[in-house]
Amino acid sequence: MEFDRREFTTFLLGAAASVSVAGPASAQSDPLPSWNDGPAKQAIVKFVHATTDAASPNFVPLAERIATFDQDGTLWVEHPIYTQLVYCFDRVPDLVKAKPELANVEPFRTVLTGDREAIAKLGLDPLLKIVAATLTGVDVDTFRDEVAKWIAETRDPRWKRPYTELVYEPQIELLKYLRSVGYRTYIVTGGGQDFVRVYAEGVYGIPPEQVVGSAGAVSYQYGAKGPVLIKEPKLLLNDDNAGKPESIHLMIGRRPYFAFGNSTGDRQMLEYTKAGAGARLAMLVLHDDGAREYAYGPAQGLPDTKVGRFTPELYDEAIKDGWIVVSMKNDWKRIFAFE
Amino acid sequence: MEFDRREFTTFLLGAAASVSVAGPASAQSDPLPSWNDGPAKQAIVKFVHATTDAASPNFVPLAERIATFDQDGTLWVEHPIYTQLVYCFDRVPDLVKAKPELANVEPFRTVLTGDREAIAKLGLDPLLKIVAATLTGVDVDTFRDEVAKWIAETRDPRWKRPYTELVYEPQIELLKYLRSVGYRTYIVTGGGQDFVRVYAEGVYGIPPEQVVGSAGAVSYQYGAKGPVLIKEPKLLLNDDNAGKPESIHLMIGRRPYFAFGNSTGDRQMLEYTKAGAGARLAMLVLHDDGAREYAYGPAQGLPDTKVGRFTPELYDEAIKDGWIVVSMKNDWKRIFAFE
Repeated sequence: MEFDRREFTTFLLGAAASVSVAGPASAQSDPLPSWNDGPAKQAIVKFVHATTDAASPNFVPLAERIATFDQDGTLWVEHPIYTQLVYCFDRVPDLVKAKPELANVEPFRTVLTGDREAIAKLGLDPLLKIVAATLTGVDVDTFRDEVAKWIAETRDPRWKRPYTELVYEPQIELLKYLRSVGYRTYIVTGGGQDFVRVYAEGVYGIPPEQVVGSAGAVSYQYGAKGPVLIKEPKLLLNDDNAGKPESIHLMIGRRPYFAFGNSTGDRQMLEYTKAGAGARLAMLVLHDDGAREYAYGPAQGLPDTKVGRFTPELYDEAIKDGWIVVSMKNDWKRIFAFE
Repeated sequence: MEFDRREFTTFLLGAAASVSVAGPASAQSDPLPSWNDGPAKQAIVKFVHATTDAASPNFVPLAERIATFDQDGTLWVEHPIYTQLVYCFDRVPDLVKAKPELANVEPFRTVLTGDREAIAKLGLDPLLKIVAATLTGVDVDTFRDEVAKWIAETRDPRWKRPYTELVYEPQIELLKYLRSVGYRTYIVTGGGQDFVRVYAEGVYGIPPEQVVGSAGAVSYQYGAKGPVLIKEPKLLLNDDNAGKPESIHLMIGRRPYFAFGNSTGDRQMLEYTKAGAGARLAMLVLHDDGAREYAYGPAQGLPDTKVGRFTPELYDEAIKDGWIVVSMKNDWKRIFAFE
């Protein structure tokens, strides 16, 4: 009567259909076809068995099955520059149009020149100035619409594709696989929560309430058309490093059983996950495929870069604590869906 | 194979069974038996029809069905004092045992006397001192265990029952009814998020990740047994008044379709909910039943109290904006399950 039975049936069947991927029929159908057989893939399958098989001593009740994923460099490309920073730079001309006095103020002046080398040399403080100016001062609905438009229109310079196509196909398979066995998949990103929420549902199948990210304060105000939430230039959550487990506690309130990252910014999230009782799996992407994507570290002698640092110390901690290091080159048969 | 099919089947059947409450069979079974027939109950049923019937112009997709409930005074008794404050007072002796120097420091000295009248007269600043001292300085797991123990052992002075039995049966029915038609029910409370999360799942069927509340910062530290999250005396989210829609944006990222409160602290949450497009329902509990519970306002000429103020201005705004005011006396056939 009042409930839309068709919709709910689809919902149930959708869940059931996904489950069958991991059910008895899965002997034929591999839920992770883009992963090469090897220790990483085996560790995932072993973890899923250990935590979802009712006969397992490490069985985890459905409600507690939480998996957290970093985004930049873990779910999609982060090199040579975080996508959200490209958005911020692209917003500067509109910002200067609205506030012409900024045209001759640094760092806006440099961004307006379009000089990539000069922009790449901007330090942290100038960058934060640009971030604060371009991500705040609007209401959350306007911001969402602006990001959605930008995401739909913008192409990356290397592959000439929307940034939302630069997601790693093996990870999309992994997200679906974990969900099919009852895990709720969360993004826990140093990037902006409001930014990532715009496309996370469409791209990763992760709804807004399961996106945890860095977040500025919003303020409730009365606009011309009613109440609005204005994005303020005040950082509320810095969701990186120790901020990741801290935000996980705030936003989820449960310790994850599974966590996936790729850089020192994910270290504490992986430590926190691994320190829980029972079977827990912590994984790290190592970007060692310069041909198909990028190669950077500086772990394993790969070039050191500013973005997404995977240090030798992180590598050592991973080996010592039984985290799984995933080699893009060796563990991933295919990196992008468009390959 | 790796998936626990029995558990998942129960999960699916559980959902399906709940759905049938609102399905065609519901002509026989009333999902809200503790609600008297009247405008409030009718408004709820009408709202559910409008947002979940696929043929309705105001149909809401499953993923967007969000309902938010204040806790104190909306889901359970808040008079004469918020339960969490009782917890804080009860923690003072242990606190002084650990830090004997506090025994002669106000306001701890007053609390230790047990003089109820003197304690009732403590102002906001002394109260905040007690709150900060008793809710912080421990790791989140220890805090959870301490609250769980206190909740299990403590009885309220009037009914001589655990506080978790002082929940309003009509609201428990409403939570279940909304969930049965696909709404996700959230608590959005001025109370402490970590406190409410301890019992919300057992008492309300609301999991930790759907409890939004006032929250202090936690800090990630390395303890003797591994990483811990320590509760810090630093307020991160003040989830009251304008803080409610602000936290809803942070924690959920979607505007609710349904919101229920009882005091001026819920005003902005109800405004924000009602200001969304389509069919939205905002409701307020009016505590006008001094015999079965408590009577306070000061709306409708009820006594003014410090706790949970329902002002004449709030009443006027409710009438003007089409919010539904629920009279405990007239709309609720039964208030407590133990009646």
